[in-house]
Amino acid sequence: MTKSLLPATGAWRTGDPAGNRQFFTIAVDRPFALDGATSLTHVTTAFETWGALDDSASNAILICHAWTGDSHAAGQAGRGHVAAGWWDDIIGPGKPIDTNRWFVVCANVLGGCQGSTGPASTHPVDDKPYGSRFPVITIRDMVRVQARLADHLGVDVWHSVIGGSMGGMQVLEWGITYPHRVRSLVPIATCAQATAQQIAWGAIGRRAILLDPRWRSGDYYDAEPGDGPWEGLAVARMVAQVTFRSDNVFTDRFGRELADGATLKDGFEMWQRFEVERYLDHHGDKLIRRFDTNSYLIIGKAMDLHDVGRGRNGLVSAIARIRVPTLTMGIWSDMLYPSYQQRQIRDLLVSAGTACEYVEIDSPHGHDAFLINLDQVAPPIEAFLDSVAKQ
Amino acid sequence: MTKSLLPATGAWRTGDPAGNRQFFTIAVDRPFALDGATSLTHVTTAFETWGALDDSASNAILICHAWTGDSHAAGQAGRGHVAAGWWDDIIGPGKPIDTNRWFVVCANVLGGCQGSTGPASTHPVDDKPYGSRFPVITIRDMVRVQARLADHLGVDVWHSVIGGSMGGMQVLEWGITYPHRVRSLVPIATCAQATAQQIAWGAIGRRAILLDPRWRSGDYYDAEPGDGPWEGLAVARMVAQVTFRSDNVFTDRFGRELADGATLKDGFEMWQRFEVERYLDHHGDKLIRRFDTNSYLIIGKAMDLHDVGRGRNGLVSAIARIRVPTLTMGIWSDMLYPSYQQRQIRDLLVSAGTACEYVEIDSPHGHDAFLINLDQVAPPIEAFLDSVAKQ
Repeated sequence: MTKSLLPATGAWRTGDPAGNRQFFTIAVDRPFALDGATSLTHVTTAFETWGALDDSASNAILICHAWTGDSHAAGQAGRGHVAAGWWDDIIGPGKPIDTNRWFVVCANVLGGCQGSTGPASTHPVDDKPYGSRFPVITIRDMVRVQARLADHLGVDVWHSVIGGSMGGMQVLEWGITYPHRVRSLVPIATCAQATAQQIAWGAIGRRAILLDPRWRSGDYYDAEPGDGPWEGLAVARMVAQVTFRSDNVFTDRFGRELADGATLKDGFEMWQRFEVERYLDHHGDKLIRRFDTNSYLIIGKAMDLHDVGRGRNGLVSAIARIRVPTLTMGIWSDMLYPSYQQRQIRDLLVSAGTACEYVEIDSPHGHDAFLINLDQVAPPIEAFLDSVAKQ
Repeated sequence: MTKSLLPATGAWRTGDPAGNRQFFTIAVDRPFALDGATSLTHVTTAFETWGALDDSASNAILICHAWTGDSHAAGQAGRGHVAAGWWDDIIGPGKPIDTNRWFVVCANVLGGCQGSTGPASTHPVDDKPYGSRFPVITIRDMVRVQARLADHLGVDVWHSVIGGSMGGMQVLEWGITYPHRVRSLVPIATCAQATAQQIAWGAIGRRAILLDPRWRSGDYYDAEPGDGPWEGLAVARMVAQVTFRSDNVFTDRFGRELADGATLKDGFEMWQRFEVERYLDHHGDKLIRRFDTNSYLIIGKAMDLHDVGRGRNGLVSAIARIRVPTLTMGIWSDMLYPSYQQRQIRDLLVSAGTACEYVEIDSPHGHDAFLINLDQVAPPIEAFLDSVAKQ
């Protein structure tokens, strides 16, 4: 198991079984070919399941997580899970995605650091962490690993594949790469291809990590505890955190207050923090205790490379491969994945003759509303899953 | 003169007379008191003028520059000026701000690095650069230095004070601090107080600079050439540059193209740049050749501290001190200073019984439209200056 380099109590959960998490390893015998003309051996994916697969294997739902998410979509906090599932209010017995009815699966993505193979995993050649040797991967690679997991689980066709943000990218790739293995799709607050502005936000985070001398070109795994690239990761996270939220909610929550109850009456200091800075620092601190910097880079790059049209004669013909009912959702206050991107998905599908409904979440919270305003997110999903079952 | 630490050919222009730039030094004999309960001695301000002050000293217009701007608002490139004036299309003989009619003044702000006293200037005590010893300053301090310059120039009342972005913050402070020294105001793409989101963007830039080991807590002026905190400044500039522009223009200009004509067909590399990254790097490179990192920090902090209501019983009563006609302009695509902030200025002024017109610039270019779409910016200003003259 990889030595913990985290500042205090945290640890990556590579190889650290917890809760009902399970592990599936593919491609031990031969390389798993990647989108980028490279390959990996010993690809492991960590996953969790809730509910039971029915006899006809027709009730399986795949949940896809976002950038720093993990397989713990539902369930309580516990050993290996610092928090309750990130969609625990939606997934469970009697909940909108009812695990008394559905067999729900969520897997940590390839490149991640929560049990699946990623840069912190050991390289089979020398048993040392991959670090800078880990290849650039794409959303398509993540999905192709999930397809192997589906085989392993005996799921030939998912009743639905559901996810927000980067999870929604995986949803679209599922529908395009494996059109006959899905019965419906729910891409939320996501896009068919990353825009220049989205790439720019990602690039700033990358550059902040590059600027951190403790990143050591990605080979920092033998550093002393506390000597890892946490500051660079924290700055990268600040950028993301601002784009995940919204101007108006920041104004309502933080205004121009100073942190720690300070006032400006006694003069000014360069590093005196406003309350919003304390909030951003808090989120940075939380992330570095649970996430590996190289995974952040690798997964971020995969999002920047996301373009369902690449190698498929462009967006229109790629989206036309999707042949199943789709529910896409947007958030009017989302500055990172503006709602025009989800309406574009809807328009492309409808133009191709595929049924697609667009639902807009009326929330001021920005991009993160898909994790916050579950009272608006859940009902359309619940109704959609049911309607697909009746078709 | 401070030794050049810049990567290649650039140099700060402290003490480096160029073009028609002039220098005015105040407070040699006694400290110049600052907003933050500290003081500075030997405060010098670099400024340029165009046109001639008339006999009644009634035709003077002050132009206030933005974050990385300088006194060179008009005129050609030349010694000490790497580019033509930043508003050269607006200011000059026969131009909308006609220097055959108006006496136009623009001064480099306090804390700057283009001739005015800032962190790269020598401390009078030891003749070494201020560096980390430079105090935190505010927009009010910048304006109070400009008022001393006005005294020096024989300008008791400005016909107008005009500026965009941070320049607009100075415009508002002029109207509030010196209501009897202005005849009109033109604040553009600016705000009455910085919001939490604006502070957050600023904080990310600050943190990127802090992350650069070459910043050396601000005391880097004796570093070898090329060993200054340029990478941190470049990352800070990336954040600013994205917020200065817009999603749609980034999509139109860069899309998902790779830099240097590369393609993704041969695989992926973590540090292979998209075209938008090349653009951001280019702007970072340009900035580090002409701007001091500590000035960037000091001026950025001044913007975060900007709140016309501080110590004045809040926004409403502060804005009510303005008693002169005001033209405020916004840009619908501005994500950094959204147009609701300029409409707020208009609403507060009108509520206080002061004439204020709001003009919206119809540009997709985002915040920087006030420097780009001069065909839309100039006519309302020209008409406004004329109407004020006739009152």
